[in-house]
Amino acid sequence: MTVKYVDGKFQLSDMSTETITENTVAINSQHNDLRLIFILDRLVHHLHDFARETRLTVDEWGMGIDFLTQVGKMCSDIRQEFVLLSDILGLSVLVDGLSHPKPENATVGTLLGPFHTHDAIEHEHETSICSEGKGEPLLIQGLLTDAEDNPIEGAKIDLWECDENGLYDTQYPDREEADMRGIVYSKADGSFVIKATRPVPYPIPHDGPVGKLLQRINRHPYRPAHIHFIIEKLGYDKLITALYHRGDPYEFSDAVFGVKTPLLFDLVKLGPDLAEKYNMKEDDWYLRWHFKIITESQAKKCLIEKTQADLEIVGKGKYVLNEDGLPIADLD
Amino acid sequence: MTVKYVDGKFQLSDMSTETITENTVAINSQHNDLRLIFILDRLVHHLHDFARETRLTVDEWGMGIDFLTQVGKMCSDIRQEFVLLSDILGLSVLVDGLSHPKPENATVGTLLGPFHTHDAIEHEHETSICSEGKGEPLLIQGLLTDAEDNPIEGAKIDLWECDENGLYDTQYPDREEADMRGIVYSKADGSFVIKATRPVPYPIPHDGPVGKLLQRINRHPYRPAHIHFIIEKLGYDKLITALYHRGDPYEFSDAVFGVKTPLLFDLVKLGPDLAEKYNMKEDDWYLRWHFKIITESQAKKCLIEKTQADLEIVGKGKYVLNEDGLPIADLD
Repeated sequence: MTVKYVDGKFQLSDMSTETITENTVAINSQHNDLRLIFILDRLVHHLHDFARETRLTVDEWGMGIDFLTQVGKMCSDIRQEFVLLSDILGLSVLVDGLSHPKPENATVGTLLGPFHTHDAIEHEHETSICSEGKGEPLLIQGLLTDAEDNPIEGAKIDLWECDENGLYDTQYPDREEADMRGIVYSKADGSFVIKATRPVPYPIPHDGPVGKLLQRINRHPYRPAHIHFIIEKLGYDKLITALYHRGDPYEFSDAVFGVKTPLLFDLVKLGPDLAEKYNMKEDDWYLRWHFKIITESQAKKCLIEKTQADLEIVGKGKYVLNEDGLPIADLD
Repeated sequence: MTVKYVDGKFQLSDMSTETITENTVAINSQHNDLRLIFILDRLVHHLHDFARETRLTVDEWGMGIDFLTQVGKMCSDIRQEFVLLSDILGLSVLVDGLSHPKPENATVGTLLGPFHTHDAIEHEHETSICSEGKGEPLLIQGLLTDAEDNPIEGAKIDLWECDENGLYDTQYPDREEADMRGIVYSKADGSFVIKATRPVPYPIPHDGPVGKLLQRINRHPYRPAHIHFIIEKLGYDKLITALYHRGDPYEFSDAVFGVKTPLLFDLVKLGPDLAEKYNMKEDDWYLRWHFKIITESQAKKCLIEKTQADLEIVGKGKYVLNEDGLPIADLD
């Protein structure tokens, strides 16, 4: 089947459940944004194939329209229900992973999530990012190197976590300043030491249509305990990641699929020596982690290689790669 | 790749851009609604494959989220922007076609559209469904038979159209009663005669995000001139269709893909004989159409046969067919 052109101009023709797809793609392709043409081409193919493969009924289509409308209604300045929907369908973590592939010897990234802010303040080493009285104290001893284990000095390490109630500071209506979040810079030997609290599992917002969907399909809304990190240093690829508590009840069923095996940490007791050294208690918690980041050029190389390799396997439709290594429509 | 079960319970594991899909499908499948399991399975596969094939970037994903949010914000009691989005992506007409396949000798269906109401009144034959002063008069001479050309008596024929401004009565804020719409019942010989006006092309609502998308990809929002029909008779398959004006400037570029070749009508002048017979003018317009509807059992048979034949070609994933002939998850 081919679409019809008259005097070089596209014409919809012979529309049926079989021909609708190529006709829709053709009418969407009469402009010069080759990336958008390719994205709409694949979108329309998948949308139509979804309907054809499921024989989606008019009633089911209507339920889908209603659901999306409810999701839209739930969105506000402080609530993004479409992001939640993307999260619980595994799309968010997939898109993140596609854009940020890492070499095997580097720390993998994971979801940024909705709770990062830009008002966290810088902390001295060995101080706590948490206000007095929050949760069970945790000492974090970090090491930051490149992929070849050379220490990286002066990198900005931005970390944040929920409190003992499973809430981020931004979820409290009376929030006045940053809490449970802070910035520390790595020392000359790549090390950093910061105090925080033991993170706890918490549910994603589930009082809206996405929560109803989870309930309908027998899924819980919880995320396992974790601590978020953004690590930045000029010339290096910005790392957005999180560390997850191995042994958490939701370790194997994170509602938003953020857990990756290489990001699991064992939570252990601090013990007498470290407790004394850092002025904490033996029974406080201890987390030690070695972060490995890559240079911008390593990241770009990795992205382009992975994209090309993947597209040889999963590539569909007519495309060429643009200068960023992304597929765009090939109109020839 | 296979997903992991421990003690019969599913566990997310080894999450990567490759394994996320089967893990998401598995965690969505822990309930007993086999149709929903199958629909979510195909939805997640297509959503993820779309991202993988396009290498959708985080920024592009964000633009998609923003777009859907704007579409949601545009929805109200009198505006369904998600339906418009479905319409301009060809999904609505596809879903309609999948659910209502017709044998070759029957009139094909097409989009219902958003302008049907339930307050149209019954009209005598040879009277007009349009109030005084509306548009250019049109005489419609119809014949209703079954697929074997046997006349069908007493079928309810519900028709509606826009006025000379391209607006349906419901689009006027001061609407008091039905106009440009009416119901007529077929006579013993299957015939019906009703007066209306010549329909004109009109744009779908395009002051929202869907209109912006159309503009961005160089598409116009117009529909070619058409008249809607719903034909109902006990024991017969309800026909939802529309007739389109052949030669309309938008015949080959209907914004919502409703035009089907067998539904094109030639608009001709009434001429002296018919003008005299029906008390109209020679220069008024004339439309003659033979509608052929099928029985409910013919429709069900056609649907099941077409579904099975199509699924042999386009079927994906593990499924069996339920009693309605729809694919459901096959968990064995």
